[in-house]
Amino acid sequence: MIKIKDVAIEAGVSVATVSRVLNNNGYVHEDTRKLVNDAIQQLNYKPNEVARSLYKKKSRLIGLLLPDIRNPFFPELARGVEDEMQEQGFRLMIGNADEMPAKESEYIETFIQNNVIGIISATSHGDRDHYNNLSLPIVFLDRVSNHHPSVYANGVEGGKIAAKVLLKRGSQTITVLRGPADLPTAQDRFRGAIDELSHSNAKVNVMSTTSFSFEEAQKWAHELFEEFPETDGVIASNDIVAAAVLHEAHRLGKSLPEDLQIIGFDDIPLSSLLFPPLSTIRQPAYDMGKEAAKLLIKLIQNEPVSQKNIQMPVTFIERQTTRKEE
Amino acid sequence: MIKIKDVAIEAGVSVATVSRVLNNNGYVHEDTRKLVNDAIQQLNYKPNEVARSLYKKKSRLIGLLLPDIRNPFFPELARGVEDEMQEQGFRLMIGNADEMPAKESEYIETFIQNNVIGIISATSHGDRDHYNNLSLPIVFLDRVSNHHPSVYANGVEGGKIAAKVLLKRGSQTITVLRGPADLPTAQDRFRGAIDELSHSNAKVNVMSTTSFSFEEAQKWAHELFEEFPETDGVIASNDIVAAAVLHEAHRLGKSLPEDLQIIGFDDIPLSSLLFPPLSTIRQPAYDMGKEAAKLLIKLIQNEPVSQKNIQMPVTFIERQTTRKEE
Repeated sequence: MIKIKDVAIEAGVSVATVSRVLNNNGYVHEDTRKLVNDAIQQLNYKPNEVARSLYKKKSRLIGLLLPDIRNPFFPELARGVEDEMQEQGFRLMIGNADEMPAKESEYIETFIQNNVIGIISATSHGDRDHYNNLSLPIVFLDRVSNHHPSVYANGVEGGKIAAKVLLKRGSQTITVLRGPADLPTAQDRFRGAIDELSHSNAKVNVMSTTSFSFEEAQKWAHELFEEFPETDGVIASNDIVAAAVLHEAHRLGKSLPEDLQIIGFDDIPLSSLLFPPLSTIRQPAYDMGKEAAKLLIKLIQNEPVSQKNIQMPVTFIERQTTRKEE
Repeated sequence: MIKIKDVAIEAGVSVATVSRVLNNNGYVHEDTRKLVNDAIQQLNYKPNEVARSLYKKKSRLIGLLLPDIRNPFFPELARGVEDEMQEQGFRLMIGNADEMPAKESEYIETFIQNNVIGIISATSHGDRDHYNNLSLPIVFLDRVSNHHPSVYANGVEGGKIAAKVLLKRGSQTITVLRGPADLPTAQDRFRGAIDELSHSNAKVNVMSTTSFSFEEAQKWAHELFEEFPETDGVIASNDIVAAAVLHEAHRLGKSLPEDLQIIGFDDIPLSSLLFPPLSTIRQPAYDMGKEAAKLLIKLIQNEPVSQKNIQMPVTFIERQTTRKEE
């Protein structure tokens, strides 16, 4: 079936522009209108009247709930969502809930007051009541939900890979930074790492941390080497924390990766610019955002969905904070 | 005059919650409702009927237009806007226009279709037609506009300070990375730096760059030392570019700040975690966002505004990519 997107591609304009021509609302330049009408004829496009009436009556607004856009993992995720939405003619309202349930439910209420037609939520409280009583489609992103569709990376596998890398390359005293206890994604990574390490002869230390903020990460990095000075391998809960550990290691005059190996999680854009460039477990943030958007749009349009829980692969990005494999 | 915000503070709830109680819409827990009503009595608060009717009839939605949230300067800016809006009971629709005028006007149209009551724009095309024919308040952020209110940092002064720092600390061959030619903020910094350098005896090289992306920054960093190998001081167009130059300098075995001084612009969160930690010119991104939000809210509420163009100060953040002052 020919879709509105095909018309847009043929005419070389956006889906939103084709919609404006079809619905005869909003300004469209005469030349552009001709391009669109030619493309419609060319492809013999028959607008789906159900979809059109939906389009006319309903908003094209989607709510996106994030923990905090200042964590450099989330801008990538958000752009993935936005670019896919933009391409298909939808728009975003964004809220940062700071992992606070009260703020989260305030945003959900605001979304509904503004007639959003679907929600993508990247916050932790997926199984809370405020999601169960909603009558619109929801997709969880970077979060696993038992009751709703979701798109997330394989954190357990990521933790396992990180542990395997450090073990294989000779770390003997490995300190694992356990991310926030209420973040299931952080706990998955942690569990994967611990599981793998428990089958080895390495000495394992665990250090609890409570957030991913830049300031606090520096404090933990300091405490890590105070408390576990013999550490020769660090599995960090994400790249921000890894960057702080790297920074502290320099301050203490350690050479990397000879004295100390560090492995992060996420692969944020700045990781390759650290010194030495950070080895890390990559989550495909941008693609995860796009997948979540695609899934939500299918749900909104009542299209068949073969897989409601999409697990995306993680990969080891080898840079210079881990030794070469022997 | 007692305001809704005072009631919220007294009751220990958000402004949005007080509004829901006043307008009797949306769910509010009975205990919370009592807290709010007690606070209203306590303070003898008389809701402003004009404001209430505005509240009831109009959306509380604000449009925020950004170039690209993936540039780490913008999440700080956006959180400043959002936190102030959230506190005063407004909500955000966000769009990334990628410095493309077509995308920019599509977002503006979408904002209007969704009944936003004001726009904050951090994109470059402020003096284009599509802003002049709008009937709602607009504030430009991180951009100077001749025709509209704006909040921006003093880029010319920032460029001057960067140049003074390098000169005073002994750089003799200074390469200035000129940011994108169509970005007035980047050109202000450039102009300030060149102006200051032209009064010195230093040899000055200029290298043109066209974006702030991570990938391209690495390419320019490479070209910089190919083309100007004698460079002993770099004024980068922002911290991303500075990080890439730092990275390339390590690759070439240069020691910092002895062989080479580098100074960035912005002070993004990761700058302090680079090695060596990056000296930079700080823009108060979060506060700029808050100021823009405050200014827009005043305009929406027809409150008197004493200053429509707010220039925020920049400051030199001394870290370890510049020498100590003698």
